[in-house]
Amino acid sequence: MRRTSRDIRTANRYDVLRRIIAASPVSRQEVAAATGLSLATVATLVGELLDLGMLTEVGFEDSDGGRPRGLIAVDAAGGALIGVDVAETYVHVELFDLALNVLARADEELRPADSRPEEVVAHIADAVRSVVEQSGVPDERVLGVGVSMPGQVDREGGVSVYAPNWDWHDVPLLDLLAERVPYPLYLDNPLRACTVAELWFGAARGREDVVVVNLGTGVGAGLALGGALHRGITNSAGEWGHTTLVLDGRPCHCGNRGCVETYVGAPGIMQNLRELSPHSPLLHPDDQTATIAALAAAVAEGDHVAVAALQETARCLGAAVADLVNLLNPEMIVLSSWVAARLGQPLLHAVREQVARHALRRPLDAVEIVLSPIPSDPVSLGAATFALKGALASVGQKTAGRSATARRTNGAAGTPAGVAPSTTARTVRSTPS
Amino acid sequence: MRRTSRDIRTANRYDVLRRIIAASPVSRQEVAAATGLSLATVATLVGELLDLGMLTEVGFEDSDGGRPRGLIAVDAAGGALIGVDVAETYVHVELFDLALNVLARADEELRPADSRPEEVVAHIADAVRSVVEQSGVPDERVLGVGVSMPGQVDREGGVSVYAPNWDWHDVPLLDLLAERVPYPLYLDNPLRACTVAELWFGAARGREDVVVVNLGTGVGAGLALGGALHRGITNSAGEWGHTTLVLDGRPCHCGNRGCVETYVGAPGIMQNLRELSPHSPLLHPDDQTATIAALAAAVAEGDHVAVAALQETARCLGAAVADLVNLLNPEMIVLSSWVAARLGQPLLHAVREQVARHALRRPLDAVEIVLSPIPSDPVSLGAATFALKGALASVGQKTAGRSATARRTNGAAGTPAGVAPSTTARTVRSTPS
Repeated sequence: MRRTSRDIRTANRYDVLRRIIAASPVSRQEVAAATGLSLATVATLVGELLDLGMLTEVGFEDSDGGRPRGLIAVDAAGGALIGVDVAETYVHVELFDLALNVLARADEELRPADSRPEEVVAHIADAVRSVVEQSGVPDERVLGVGVSMPGQVDREGGVSVYAPNWDWHDVPLLDLLAERVPYPLYLDNPLRACTVAELWFGAARGREDVVVVNLGTGVGAGLALGGALHRGITNSAGEWGHTTLVLDGRPCHCGNRGCVETYVGAPGIMQNLRELSPHSPLLHPDDQTATIAALAAAVAEGDHVAVAALQETARCLGAAVADLVNLLNPEMIVLSSWVAARLGQPLLHAVREQVARHALRRPLDAVEIVLSPIPSDPVSLGAATFALKGALASVGQKTAGRSATARRTNGAAGTPAGVAPSTTARTVRSTPS
Repeated sequence: MRRTSRDIRTANRYDVLRRIIAASPVSRQEVAAATGLSLATVATLVGELLDLGMLTEVGFEDSDGGRPRGLIAVDAAGGALIGVDVAETYVHVELFDLALNVLARADEELRPADSRPEEVVAHIADAVRSVVEQSGVPDERVLGVGVSMPGQVDREGGVSVYAPNWDWHDVPLLDLLAERVPYPLYLDNPLRACTVAELWFGAARGREDVVVVNLGTGVGAGLALGGALHRGITNSAGEWGHTTLVLDGRPCHCGNRGCVETYVGAPGIMQNLRELSPHSPLLHPDDQTATIAALAAAVAEGDHVAVAALQETARCLGAAVADLVNLLNPEMIVLSSWVAARLGQPLLHAVREQVARHALRRPLDAVEIVLSPIPSDPVSLGAATFALKGALASVGQKTAGRSATARRTNGAAGTPAGVAPSTTARTVRSTPS
């Protein structure tokens, strides 16, 4: 499975744009130095992105007496990207400009009773419509919508293969969504989204071997190995939450026992607390978010039960993170998602202590363990970058925004129109009127 | 950490030679098709390897009425490679021709009392001398010696960083060995060696995402991700034997508790048997090899205790292999090393059953679990390929065999002479006479 020259071109285009987003304004020479690509290649790719209106020329800089160098910057208004974070209890949607600034946000609550696919799709569509309306961005400027769906997903098919918390199996999510959302759609899961967000904007910028540990209701590990996502042969790598920490331990919804997730996911942490203090006032039996928030507040006040529950969680989490350190020998582990954000520094310190107890010296000495520094939602940010990558993959076939306009003009009145298809994008199907 | 053009050239040279070894005789056109390299690149690399005497022209084939195509083959006599498998209880050394046929073997037993570095080095040097003498290959034709050392190794420094069974820390193994072995030396560990052997010659030919599970006294996992070895940031990836299977479980020599190795390494299997039947006649308390052999024979005869011990081992091993399936989503898991070879099909079947019980459906459906098909010792074979890769890395600087001859001629009489250095080779130091 060698990469084709087309794949390489898309990857180079993505890499160039990423560097320009990180350092606008910047010269082609600087981009060439940062990416390792030749100046000629960079000039060609920059030319394409200028033609698409994704970049803009912003002047010249002196170059030590030589010819002044042209400076380029991302054209923030050159397109909009939408990132959708579907979680067990909410849908969070953000609309970004091309510099990845947030222009609008929308949230929809998902109650346990709302978990049928049609209902989840309706919430996503409502939130997407809301952010586009709030931002005032015209439809044809929306380059795409990246959707992060928990569990295992088939990216190419746009299918939620298995969503454990709702027991979804093989739900054709993008097909359902395409009936209500008139933009190119891209699917992946929160592990990938968080990891890409860390690589582009977070703690892992410039790093090669990084594991992003996602602590939420479910838990998992996004793997960036050799500087790129490791997806596995069927895009389901990273199910660290379903590796065994305690053989014959707590039952897990996956059917196994003793999975990491049953000890360090939000419900697992609640169970740790319950086993220490069955009637703790910190416990909100039907509300994970409230319980974790109460636990964090009580830890800050030095509450003994809360500190003990945090320690027990860190003991399990530390052993499981040490497994990642020993097996993969990464240079960095990033603790991400809402549980990590809530429990913050006290969790980080306790985990570092436990990892030091469990990991082998050599990989331990080589690894940094940090909290995600991304201030907003890394999942929607990462999901938006999938849409950006998808849009870049279709450059050169037909340019994204333009072909959408063209098709809309040619299509049936009132029919949502798609954008140039790429191999990984599911474009909107025209519903015959 | 982008690869330099020199790295890429070495990798391409290695890839070309690997294809030719696999399919001699072969045309340049076929090599180009198999490697994805251009015909011009292949022609240049083949030219270099012909100049070095590693390949030979062997005639022509018709090409459907076009010009006859030249056929090339590996020149088996073009050099010799030595692979050293250092294990807890033995040193096994093989000398290979360039087609990777075994020309000579030597074994040295390591008794528990022989485990000081100087003693192990003496055994290695004796065995290396023995295979060279047996084969009659002249010194200047020995392209290099690959040494596989259990535990964690620093390849560039040639140091055994941590060898758990002997409690070695930071032993400068190649420096010690260079005083007694007059060939270029390359160090790595058995996980890497077995994995390369499977990729080149074994079950994993042509595969991208493969885990080679090494079951011996110690256990570990060689990771081939995206078709290449994943080494980790300090070359210590793969310490799956020291991931936690049972939190607070059996004590492990690494200082942790409940490590996978304590349940499925040879001593762990002995413990499984002992817990089922403390006085089992299958147990040879001081002899792992004899115990595993007795267990395998008793399983074949349907002995109840032996079958139960195998099942309990498979239960632990299955859960731990399922962790690899869920975390890495590989297309293949290869069970390798002497314990896997001894317990064979009954272990394989029991492990497959247990993995099916523990792994998630999607990655489970995508993975094949097989026994290593390599009939000889995969570790010495893999170690020899490290020496081959090292020799290829020095092509173009100075050619390997020739520069050795040149230096020997110029060097002090009786002084062992080295071969052109490469970044990963530790060349022999000339001891001033």
